[in-house]
This record gives sequence, C-alpha cells and structure tokens, in this order.
Amino acid sequence: MNVGIVGASGYSGAVLVNLLLGHPHAKLAAVTSRQHADKPLSSVIPALRGTVADTLRFSGSDASALAARADIGIWFLALPHGAAAEFAKVLVAAGRRVIDLSADFRIADLATYEKYYGHHHAPDLLPHARFVLPELTDPKWKDEIKLAAAPGCYPTSVLVPLAPLLAAGVVSREHIVVNSFSGVSGAGKKAEEAYLYCERAESAKAYSLVKHRHLAEIEEQLSLRAGAKVVVQFNPHLAPMRRGIITTITVPAAPGATLDSLYAAWRTAYVGRPFVCILPSGETPDSAHVTGTNRVDLSAVLDPRTGNIVITSAEDNLVKGASGQAIQIMNLWCGFPETAGLP
Amino acid sequence: MNVGIVGASGYSGAVLVNLLLGHPHAKLAAVTSRQHADKPLSSVIPALRGTVADTLRFSGSDASALAARADIGIWFLALPHGAAAEFAKVLVAAGRRVIDLSADFRIADLATYEKYYGHHHAPDLLPHARFVLPELTDPKWKDEIKLAAAPGCYPTSVLVPLAPLLAAGVVSREHIVVNSFSGVSGAGKKAEEAYLYCERAESAKAYSLVKHRHLAEIEEQLSLRAGAKVVVQFNPHLAPMRRGIITTITVPAAPGATLDSLYAAWRTAYVGRPFVCILPSGETPDSAHVTGTNRVDLSAVLDPRTGNIVITSAEDNLVKGASGQAIQIMNLWCGFPETAGLP
Amino acid sequence: MNVGIVGASGYSGAVLVNLLLGHPHAKLAAVTSRQHADKPLSSVIPALRGTVADTLRFSGSDASALAARADIGIWFLALPHGAAAEFAKVLVAAGRRVIDLSADFRIADLATYEKYYGHHHAPDLLPHARFVLPELTDPKWKDEIKLAAAPGCYPTSVLVPLAPLLAAGVVSREHIVVNSFSGVSGAGKKAEEAYLYCERAESAKAYSLVKHRHLAEIEEQLSLRAGAKVVVQFNPHLAPMRRGIITTITVPAAPGATLDSLYAAWRTAYVGRPFVCILPSGETPDSAHVTGTNRVDLSAVLDPRTGNIVITSAEDNLVKGASGQAIQIMNLWCGFPETAGLP
Amino acid sequence: MNVGIVGASGYSGAVLVNLLLGHPHAKLAAVTSRQHADKPLSSVIPALRGTVADTLRFSGSDASALAARADIGIWFLALPHGAAAEFAKVLVAAGRRVIDLSADFRIADLATYEKYYGHHHAPDLLPHARFVLPELTDPKWKDEIKLAAAPGCYPTSVLVPLAPLLAAGVVSREHIVVNSFSGVSGAGKKAEEAYLYCERAESAKAYSLVKHRHLAEIEEQLSLRAGAKVVVQFNPHLAPMRRGIITTITVPAAPGATLDSLYAAWRTAYVGRPFVCILPSGETPDSAHVTGTNRVDLSAVLDPRTGNIVITSAEDNLVKGASGQAIQIMNLWCGFPETAGLP
Repeated sequence: MNVGIVGASGYSGAVLVNLLLGHPHAKLAAVTSRQHADKPLSSVIPALRGTVADTLRFSGSDASALAARADIGIWFLALPHGAAAEFAKVLVAAGRRVIDLSADFRIADLATYEKYYGHHHAPDLLPHARFVLPELTDPKWKDEIKLAAAPGCYPTSVLVPLAPLLAAGVVSREHIVVNSFSGVSGAGKKAEEAYLYCERAESAKAYSLVKHRHLAEIEEQLSLRAGAKVVVQFNPHLAPMRRGIITTITVPAAPGATLDSLYAAWRTAYVGRPFVCILPSGETPDSAHVTGTNRVDLSAVLDPRTGNIVITSAEDNLVKGASGQAIQIMNLWCGFPETAGLP
Repeated sequence: MNVGIVGASGYSGAVLVNLLLGHPHAKLAAVTSRQHADKPLSSVIPALRGTVADTLRFSGSDASALAARADIGIWFLALPHGAAAEFAKVLVAAGRRVIDLSADFRIADLATYEKYYGHHHAPDLLPHARFVLPELTDPKWKDEIKLAAAPGCYPTSVLVPLAPLLAAGVVSREHIVVNSFSGVSGAGKKAEEAYLYCERAESAKAYSLVKHRHLAEIEEQLSLRAGAKVVVQFNPHLAPMRRGIITTITVPAAPGATLDSLYAAWRTAYVGRPFVCILPSGETPDSAHVTGTNRVDLSAVLDPRTGNIVITSAEDNLVKGASGQAIQIMNLWCGFPETAGLP
Repeated sequence: MNVGIVGASGYSGAVLVNLLLGHPHAKLAAVTSRQHADKPLSSVIPALRGTVADTLRFSGSDASALAARADIGIWFLALPHGAAAEFAKVLVAAGRRVIDLSADFRIADLATYEKYYGHHHAPDLLPHARFVLPELTDPKWKDEIKLAAAPGCYPTSVLVPLAPLLAAGVVSREHIVVNSFSGVSGAGKKAEEAYLYCERAESAKAYSLVKHRHLAEIEEQLSLRAGAKVVVQFNPHLAPMRRGIITTITVPAAPGATLDSLYAAWRTAYVGRPFVCILPSGETPDSAHVTGTNRVDLSAVLDPRTGNIVITSAEDNLVKGASGQAIQIMNLWCGFPETAGLP
Repeated sequence: MNVGIVGASGYSGAVLVNLLLGHPHAKLAAVTSRQHADKPLSSVIPALRGTVADTLRFSGSDASALAARADIGIWFLALPHGAAAEFAKVLVAAGRRVIDLSADFRIADLATYEKYYGHHHAPDLLPHARFVLPELTDPKWKDEIKLAAAPGCYPTSVLVPLAPLLAAGVVSREHIVVNSFSGVSGAGKKAEEAYLYCERAESAKAYSLVKHRHLAEIEEQLSLRAGAKVVVQFNPHLAPMRRGIITTITVPAAPGATLDSLYAAWRTAYVGRPFVCILPSGETPDSAHVTGTNRVDLSAVLDPRTGNIVITSAEDNLVKGASGQAIQIMNLWCGFPETAGLP
C-alpha cells in the first residue's frame, strides 16, 4: 500500500521516513517538504544514505496536488498544528485516510483546543477524527473515523500507565502529580539559542509549568476513562539527552487498592499488547532501554507511609511518542500485523 | 587557619580540596586517603596539576594520629556514613571542630537514623552535633555544637525552597510531592556497571523510590519547621549529566495563600543571604546555571486550576549540595566572611 | 538457518543478538554466556524486552556441548582473544562454520600476532582462517575457509578508505598518519573507573599511542594491498560519546595523483557495494549519520600546499566495526542477500 | 585597575567576565554589548547571578564613548574579526591598552591575513600590535606594543607543545600533521542548526580541512621559531562536548633526537611557567583535567617503528585558548602576578 508523508524535515519526520522505508507492507510513495522540495531524502536525513532515500526526493507541498494522488492509501501529517488541519481538510475531502501527528485533532472539545492552541483550522473535521492510542482507544475507531490523531509524546507516557488505573478505580482522581523528563528532540529541529548543544548539555530544567499544551489531551482522555473530570499537575522538564521521556506519576491509592490490584489492572488492560512492558515493582524503567523501540515500560510502587502510588514509565518520544505510534495506528487501520515495521 | 580533610578521594572530596586550596583564610594542612596514602593530591585530582596539589600528599587515615594534630582547627569528614562517625568520635574527643559531609549526624532522632542507615557508630556524639543548613538553621548552632553535619544534596534542594513556606503556612503540610533529577556524580566514584558511561549517557530513570535515605533528614527538618509531622513523597531520578540537581515540588497552596505571599516568605527568609537566588515566577532554574557555584536558584508558580504550588530549585550537588556548603559552614563557624573561598 | 553466539553479554554481543533476532534468514538458536547462564536474553539486553528475547535464555558455555549442536549452521564468537581461539578449535573440529569477532584469526603472521597479543591458543587453525572485510577481501574466501575473522573496529575505518588507494598507487606508502576517535563502547562493558560516566563525559584523550593492537591487522592488510611493507602512525582517542568512530588519515599524494584519480579508485573499488558511501570532497562524514547502520562514509580532500591527501571516514564501531560486519560476512558466506538483516 | 570588555555576550566573553569579576587587581568597569545594552550582566550570564553581575549592566558599544573612558586601563575586545579592528583603531588612538581576542592582529603579514580573513580594517595598527603567547613570545612585547593579540584556541594547543621542539631542532620541519578535537563552544553561541544539541550530541566529525583560518597564525609562529618556513597539515574536528581541545601532533623526529632531548627542550622552554604541565611519556592529557583551568598539559612518545614523535596536548578552549590567556597577558602587561585571577 502506498503511503505519503507531508512535512518530513524534522526529527519525528526523519524517524517516520526511516520506519516506513523498512515497512513490509507500506511503500513510501511521497514525502513533501516546502523547505527541501526536490532534494533527495538522504540529503536531509543523512542516516539514510545508501538506501532508496538517495533517489526518493522531497516533493512540494501543494495540498490539492497531494489530494489528487489516488495511489496513496494513507497520508501521514508531520506538520505544526494549524498547518496540519489545513492539509487534513483537503486530503479527507478527497477521500484519503489521514494519520495526523499534530495536536489538531487530538482534542474532541473545540473550546478546550482553542484555549490551548488558538483558532482551529478545520473544526468540521472533528466529528470524523479521533485521538487514537491503540492500547487504550476503543477498537471501533478503525471503522468510524476518517482521520486518526496520533497522541502527543508526553500524553502517551502518562495515559498508558494511568488510564487503566483510573478506569479500574485503583487510584484516586485527585492530587495527581505528573513529572516528565524529555530529551531535547521533543523541542524539534529549531535553530534557537535555547536548544544549542552548549546550552542543553549538562543542563536540566523545568519548563512550561502549569500551562503545557499537552494538558488538554491528557486531561480529556483521563476524564473519559475515569468517568469524571480529572485535573492533573503536569510538570515537564528538559533533560540533557537527545531522545526519551521518563514520566513519574504520584497519586494517592484508592481506598482498598493494593499493588497487586494495580498490577492486575495493568495486566488486564494490556494482555497481548506487544508494545507495553510491565516491569516488576522495584525495577524502574530506563529511557535508554526503550529508545529506538515502540515500547512503553511501566512500573509502580506503593508507599505505605504516604498512601501514594508512584508510577514510572519510559518511552522514546520520537517512536512510541510520535512516529512509531503513527505506524502502529496505520497497521491496525489497514489490517497489517500490529508490529509490522516497528522495532 | 589550618584545616584537614579525611577521605578526599571521591568527587565531593575533589571539590572540597579544590575550594580549600583557594580559600583566603584556610590552609589545607592534611588530606587523608587510605587508598592513596603518600601520593600527591594532583595524581588523584588531575584538575589540580600545577598547583600546590603537586607537592601536598595524601596521608594515612589513622584517627588518633589525625586527632593529635593540634595545628588543625577544623576537620572535614568526606567519608561514608558509619566510617565518618568513627572518626568523628576520636576527633571531637580530642577537642577538634568537625564538619561532617556524611549522614551520620544529620538526623537528631536515633531511631530514625537507624531505620534508614543501620547501627549508629557514635550515638553519644548526637547531642553535640547538629544538621546545619546555614540559611535555615538557627545561628546559635555556632556556639552550641562540636560537630556540624553538612546536609545531603537532595535535602538541600528540597529544604531551601520548602522549609520557609511551611514555616510561614503558605503551603499545605500534606500531599507534598518532591521529584528530583541528579547528575551521576551524586552516586560517587564507584566502579560499578550501572555508572559506566555507556549505561548512563542518553539515559534517565527513577531510582530508590519510597525508601531513599534522604527522606530521614528531609522529613525531620520539614517537621521541625512546620511545627508538626510532615511526610513527603520523594522521587529521585538519575540524569545523563555529571553534576547538578533540579528539584520540582508540588504541594497544595494553603488556604488564602497567594504567589505574592509565597515570594514574600522567601524574601523574608533569605534577605541578605548570598547563596539563595529567587527567580521571578515563570523563570525556572537551570542546573547548568548553578553548576560550579554555591548557589541555589528558586522559583514558584501557582496553578489556579489545581490549587497547587509548583516550586522549582537547582543546585550543584557537589558544591551547595556538599562541599561548598561545608565550607560555608566553616566560614560562619570561624567568623570568616560567609562567601570566602566560595565561587 | 540456525545460528549461535558464544559470549554475548557485552556491547557488541547485544548488537549481534538484536540484529540476528531480526534477520530474515537466520534463526538465533543459542546464545551462551558463562556469567548469565539461564537468564532470559532480555534481562541482560533490556532493549529487547517484549520480543522473543524474553523467552530465549542464555545457555552455558561448554565448548563440546556447543560443538555437538548439529543444528547450528554458523557460530559467532563474541569472546575476548585467547578464549575465542579455544572455542574456535572445538567448533571448527566439529565441522561448524565460525565467524570470530575477536582478533585471534585476523592476523595471518603468527609472530606478529604473538608480538601484540601473546601466546596463540590455536595456531593450527590459522591456515583455515582468514581476515574477511567483505568489500576488500578476495571473494574466494567463501570457499577456502572454515573460520572468518571479522575485522577490528578501528581497522575497518582505516582499511576501507585507505586500502584501495594504496593498491591504486594514488597515495604514498610512507608518512601515513591515522588519527581515530572512538565512542566509549569500544572499550567494552568493563566496570572500571576510567569508563565511569563522570570520567568520560566532557572528556577526550589519546590512548595506546604507538602500540595499539589494531596496528597488527592494519599494517598486515595495508601491506598486502600495497604490495610492499607499510607502516603507519596510528593515534586512537576516546571521545565522549557511546558509539561511532571517525578516522582521519593524512598521507602524501603519490606523484601525479589527483583528487579525481582518488575518487575514481574508490568508485572502482566499491562499485555496487551497499555499505560504502562516498561523499563529495568537502563534505565530511559524521559519526552520528552512520550510527545504527552498517555503513562507512568516506571523503577526501587534497591540500595543494602540503601535497597531502586527507581522508575522513565514519562508522558505527559496534555495527560495521563489529557485529554488523559479522552478519554481512554470514550473508555472503551463506548465499543470503548481502544486506539481509542489516539496517 | 579598571578594565573593560567590548562585546561580551558569547561563550568566551562570559568566561572573561567571570574571571575578571574575581580578579584581585582588576575591576571590571565596563562591559559592552550591542545586543544586550542596559541589561544586567547576570541576565545574559546566569551563572553569575547573586554577584555584582546583578547590578553591573551592559552598556552600548559606541567606540568613541568607550575611548573617552580615561578610567579604563585595559580594554579587552571579544568581537568578531573585522569588528575588533574597528574598535582597536579608536581605542589605541585614544592611548588605551588593548587585548584583542580576535584574529585581527595575530598575523604579522598583512597578505597572509587577507588571504584567510579578507580585508583588514586597521592595517596601520599592525606594527604596534603583536601575537602574544606568554610562554613563547619574547617578553619585550610588554614594552613594545599598544595592542596584544591573544592567540586562537587551536593555535595555542599546537604552538605550546610544538614551537620549542622546532626551535630546539628536536623534530622535523616537514611532514607535520596536526589533528585537533574541540568542544562545541569553540563555534560560538550561534543559533544555527548545525550546533543544535540533537545535531552535536553523540556526533564527531572533521571540518574545515585544509583551509582553517588558524593555519595562518600557526604557520607564521612555527616558521618564526623554526627559523624557516613551516607548513603543516591541520585537521580540526568537532567533539560532542562543550569545552576542551585535545591536539595530537605527529612529526618525524629530527636525526639524533631522543625522547629525553624532547623533554629537555620542553623543560628548558617552560621552566617556571605556571600554566604548562609536562606529563610523563605514556600519560596522555585529558581535556576534562584542564577544563576550567588556564593550563596546557603536554606529553610525547617516540615511535621507534616509524621514527615519528607523537605529541599530545589538552587545554580549555575558552580559558587558555581565549579568555584565561587574555587575562594572563594583562597580568604580565600590568605587572600583576602572572597567575592572578586565574584558576
């Protein structure tokens, strides 16, 4: 099946190209980039020298021209929010399936989206789109949508461990504190002083406290699964590494909850899921162990002194946190083996 | 004034030697290390080549021989807990002032110490010792003790921002969640696989959840200042950097508390203190900005949606978190300018 | 075809396991490790959690038991030199094909081997073994040997660019100066102070000047291709990164040689080779662009002022410099596509 | 004595400010930056929070206004080449002493300068300026010049080890091959994609082969000391670290030269010099051991097989390679102790 990528010049775009070039059932037939139109893919993604990326070239990004490509079965959008919605409009109208890596269609509630992101460029598309986290979203999405919104990197690292526990009533819905620690690639490939090597090496800091945009989808999804409104404290931090996110969630245990019931909730939720790995309590996930894979590692401990549960997760922000998950969505949507093409 | 260091072959020992060699009022007259006895300091601390460290040699570590050194005004102990107490006994008995970098005398309650650290090697010394965090500890310590216990690295990063807020009633005493990220030097100079470059680079992970030893002094000190028992969730993490600790504390605001009252509490507590730097709300501390200095940077935000206050701090784990603070203690104890010899 | 690995607990062993688990034509049927016998592979190689590595276990390392495995078509030896030869003896005697990642069979001349490595544990095997660098070694090796010696990491980075140029008479045979910078994984997974994170981060240094063991195979192979004895200056350095080797070779141009004739020699030597990528003069290889791939990137410039040619190359020390090349050898030896299973 | 800095917003500027603020004999009375005029120094150099840098502000960069400051004894120029010469003209004309960190006055031969750097903005100043490397330059510079040109970072790492050996006839004047490996701060604080954290971490590469500008001063100085024209191969590389330069020089030993005569030449040249540290043969310099100091560590080996001498050096590119050396120059020029204010 032919696939295309719109806007593949950033870090998650490079991972997406890399993974799709090795996919047994998908053929990368178009990759667009305004900035790099006509250049070979490998000139922008040098890790791909010596492969078909030497001959495949970026094409321009005219939405109607892309929509006219009847040969493309699925379009991946690796664009900034706002721009993604513009392309989504045209491609969905032309009957193409779309997997969007931006935030544009992750949030069902328009008012919430606009509070965090501003004006929505394609609100009419919202009813036909859905936030799809394969391990959590009801599988009927495959038949009900025209556009799948791949979740954000931080949200994935929060929802995978926490959502089933809220649904199972193992943890409290209040006093949830989420601390995440991300590699610098999460910020994108922007030539800004703050992301220079000399600024970020040997440096760690919190940022975007209180108002990080990912709160929108984190809370919407958690509230959905808890059956009631959930509000969390989300504290993201920049870490001196390129890739990886670790997330540590502290939340009071629900009355009567035990570590066993927590682990049971996880096992039930994730039985047979190839990309969720539950570690024994006491063994904590390490971002280096998941980097390059589409896996989320989870673990939890119960603190008898505080009555809190402390949950830890790790993922690769560019893979399970973006491009790997997008491909996982494609696999399920198109009936391929869920793990096809994923490391 | 002559000073000596017992056990200076690790990372904080090297910083201690470095700082003392440049101190205008202290003269490093003895540095002991069982492992390196008779070697020049610079052979173990190569950063100090070309200085007096080329001729100053490590001496052996016989406690009585050290105690006999009537010329040494203050002894710094840079030893593991347990071993530190053994030396402290002998040195204090000989009438020497001691500044201990270990945990042995940080905790006033013997039962608490033993729960976390095991058997105490010098409990009789406890009444004559005290946890001394210069910015917080009542200044009368200078006249009342024979041994000053320099606080632990994580505890410093927690207590400096949090203690005044508990004392001023600006934050709740409950639901305190502390997340810290530390550079690898905090683990010491141990030749263990877990601390190899290839294991720690591009890697972040939580560790010692629920039971980290620093909980003992963190909670004892917080309870002291809150005037009631305080229990916290303390989640430490290893970061892929050599030095630095960032700490992010989430705690509900007390009823009626505002960001202004929080900042006022800080300013009151730290007026005139040279090593506490209060950043405007919204500007978060960066560990790279404090590395090499004896400074703690602080900041806070108030989240109206959750009612939580999120406090962030940064310090250099080897300086303000260990050796710099030890020297700051010496300065105050001996009547030197508080900032003498500190970067 | 079933394959086995002897001694897979180090960094190149982990890469070998990882690549073989994804190989379309090879099935990893045995992985031995004295240290980790009976543990699941993923307990030692956590990056492989969630795969068959969770159920595949390390087995013990009794050479005769391994030799008795008639189902194993090829054995990979990922052992230290000396130990490798011991296992090779037994396995080859039992009629198994062996690909050795150690230095034991890379050097044809026994006296040279012994000068650098000491006593040879299986000299009788030498006539049946050969140094195999697929892009350079005469293809008849496939029919003539019982054991293929995979080249060393540094040697690969030197020979791939330099050997064809010596053979073509484009560069001088004298005054060859090779400087290499390697990631720390090249040192192995040894719990030694020198390889601790805090010792290697932000640190670069030369080491093993004049006498690095890799000189043995570098000079033997260069002399072979030059048709005369070649001696080089080889200066290795440790770089503050985990993976990758860059090598910069300075050598006088041969009389009449031009940059064009140099590039022509490369293109002729490497026409159709999937893992050699020749960059235009002026564009230098970056180790980050080849990490994770089996590729060597090359480039060269000619300095009219000095008459020197400066050649630059980059490879991943664990892939093309070890395990990837070993698999490439297997592919050719067994008639699989040369790129099978290689990223 | 009052000093001023023109253009202190980059990495070496920050080091210069930091060192001068702690200098016992110099008082930092003016720091200019077009970009940051009126901001407190600590807003641009956050490492200096909590010091006088909180109140000292950047001023504008009008050359005549600066020249009018009769209270400033020495001006440091931390500007790009070209701009530096413009300011130098005005300041020297006003009778001020100037220490220039740019390349503008390092090269005595105008034609050479123009070949590498383009049009010279103040050629009339050249006779009153001089390249000053304190350990090498004839001390009479103090009385003969109006402007001291602080050497470049790479050149310092080359000249300190090599110049005395050429002068003493211990090494050949031909076939000199210099390989250097520098931290990223050497590239400056430019918001360019190539210097982003994600581009430079885990990456090493050669750059500016054959034509690096530092060749101009390296060869001019070496030729001076060799008493004949010297041409070298200079191969710089970018390393994944923030600070530090290691340089490895390969050069044939002169006939009759021995390692002893080499070390004797060094000892003679550097007797009593506080910032040159000669390591025993076999012990190689490590950039991490000199970072933060004004020291150059040197070592050499003689390879009997090749007849080459391999010299290794390490320095901190921002200290001995720039700002530390500039202060060392000031110390000598003004009669302060040579080590004043230098770590």
